[in-house]
Amino acid sequence: MNSDIDIIVSEVGPRDGLQSIKTVMPTGEKIRWIESLAHAGLREIEVGSFVPPKLLPQMADTAEVVRAARNIARLTVVALAPNHKGAELAIASGAHSITMPVSASRAHSASNLRRTPEEAVEDVRKVRQLCDNASRDKRPRLEVGIATAFGCSMEGPVSEEWVMQLAVKLAEAGADSIGLSDSVGFANPTQVKRMFGNLRHEIGAKAGAAHFHNTRGLGLANVVSALDAGVTTFDSSQGGLGGCPFAPGATGNIITEDLVFMLESMGLRTGVNLERLIDARAVLRGALPNESLYGNVPDSGLPKGFVYARQS
Amino acid sequence: MNSDIDIIVSEVGPRDGLQSIKTVMPTGEKIRWIESLAHAGLREIEVGSFVPPKLLPQMADTAEVVRAARNIARLTVVALAPNHKGAELAIASGAHSITMPVSASRAHSASNLRRTPEEAVEDVRKVRQLCDNASRDKRPRLEVGIATAFGCSMEGPVSEEWVMQLAVKLAEAGADSIGLSDSVGFANPTQVKRMFGNLRHEIGAKAGAAHFHNTRGLGLANVVSALDAGVTTFDSSQGGLGGCPFAPGATGNIITEDLVFMLESMGLRTGVNLERLIDARAVLRGALPNESLYGNVPDSGLPKGFVYARQS
Repeated sequence: MNSDIDIIVSEVGPRDGLQSIKTVMPTGEKIRWIESLAHAGLREIEVGSFVPPKLLPQMADTAEVVRAARNIARLTVVALAPNHKGAELAIASGAHSITMPVSASRAHSASNLRRTPEEAVEDVRKVRQLCDNASRDKRPRLEVGIATAFGCSMEGPVSEEWVMQLAVKLAEAGADSIGLSDSVGFANPTQVKRMFGNLRHEIGAKAGAAHFHNTRGLGLANVVSALDAGVTTFDSSQGGLGGCPFAPGATGNIITEDLVFMLESMGLRTGVNLERLIDARAVLRGALPNESLYGNVPDSGLPKGFVYARQS
Repeated sequence: MNSDIDIIVSEVGPRDGLQSIKTVMPTGEKIRWIESLAHAGLREIEVGSFVPPKLLPQMADTAEVVRAARNIARLTVVALAPNHKGAELAIASGAHSITMPVSASRAHSASNLRRTPEEAVEDVRKVRQLCDNASRDKRPRLEVGIATAFGCSMEGPVSEEWVMQLAVKLAEAGADSIGLSDSVGFANPTQVKRMFGNLRHEIGAKAGAAHFHNTRGLGLANVVSALDAGVTTFDSSQGGLGGCPFAPGATGNIITEDLVFMLESMGLRTGVNLERLIDARAVLRGALPNESLYGNVPDSGLPKGFVYARQS
């Protein structure tokens, strides 16, 4: 963590947002958007995903985007890699951090990742080796987000004990950080506080980011609880890009603009300038004129007399 | 508080929602909606406002609505009264509870209530007398919500010390409960926890309801903090009716459907059945086909395996 910020807002729009929409954003536009997000003060951006272009043509240019994003000062460039092959490409492109999805729900794991959670843990172990064997300047950090950690639209409730066991296995397999993801909007604030508390108890400093969706309107409420449990990294997406397939008008990921506003209002330094974040939103809007963008703060503006968290 | 619920969700849609829109809902429709809300399990509903019909024609039938709502078993019927005259009418109609608005911001108080905060305190003192002089079966509870308690779109930040002084004055003037209202979406979770904590410290059991708006997306996040500070009554509006004049697409009041879902998910009993609440929403939709209704839970549905807070 940089000492001049309290909370890392990890922008996932260029990956999670863009892969959820049909339009393919041209590479140049992606890079311009990522640059403007970084200019707003975001220190960590998930810029793409190393998946086969046949599956996700929106992500076909990820290597090029990673290389461009590496030129931005102070930015941690994150790339998603679903497997060993993706991790090889991520390392070759120079991503600072690789994030691998592992799903706690067996049904979700089978349908989305086509493997069991145990097999996914073994993949992480192999990618750990790959990272360790990389040349020093290209050795990435290895992160895992446990998907469906709070419930699954196929299975319903997911055993919290099992999620913790999985987190311990992943820590043993060599992940540097393990976060919990509410991929489908099941989490509630009580559960969030309990689970992130337990996660820290189980794996200590390897306890990672919170990834919340706003499917049922509880996104920022869950952030408040996660803050209480000591979480310091939150994923979010500019404009809630990508929306939510279940809920017309509802966002998928929590909205970066509203998250930053809330954190700064609470006296927590994010390093992000909201006016510049709105400029970045204009870049996104220009590149994707037909996509829905969400956010209450962009609509309402900042409250009169708003001050950022103090830089001490 | 009824012993079978943990949190009172106080529905303000028939007052706060309906007075914010141009359409005048016919009296029969209002009563049908209120009955369906009560049927869903809501125990407290603010059914109207005793203001001059010239100012708010939407509220001209409040006496009739109060009388009808009094026939609903187990329902606390609340009416807003901006002044002595309104309180007389509220008592005559048989409202169980009168709520009076007092604004902490001098600019807002002058423009919206046409009096100083000190004059508003004196009004509360006179209405206290009025309530005490009412016949026993018509003696209402007297509640105050301090508007602009977290900030004001005219003044900007409002002194928290002043808000507490005002709460103490109102308690001395005879209000039974004093709540804090974020009328314009300025509150943040840190401030909410601090202020409701201070309120309880200053006026003990007279510390009242939290009234949050979702103008900047922080409505439910603020509820989580208020719960931490011991608040047990929350105002909300079905479908976020009334919207927010500053923010297209943003709600004014927090949304009853999403609030109930969050509380029940957290293990807090509200007594409200979400399926029946959706039925009440259909009644509202039928009566006001052209108004925007909001809510993530109505769009997304309940998560698979959802269970209500346990009835112990």
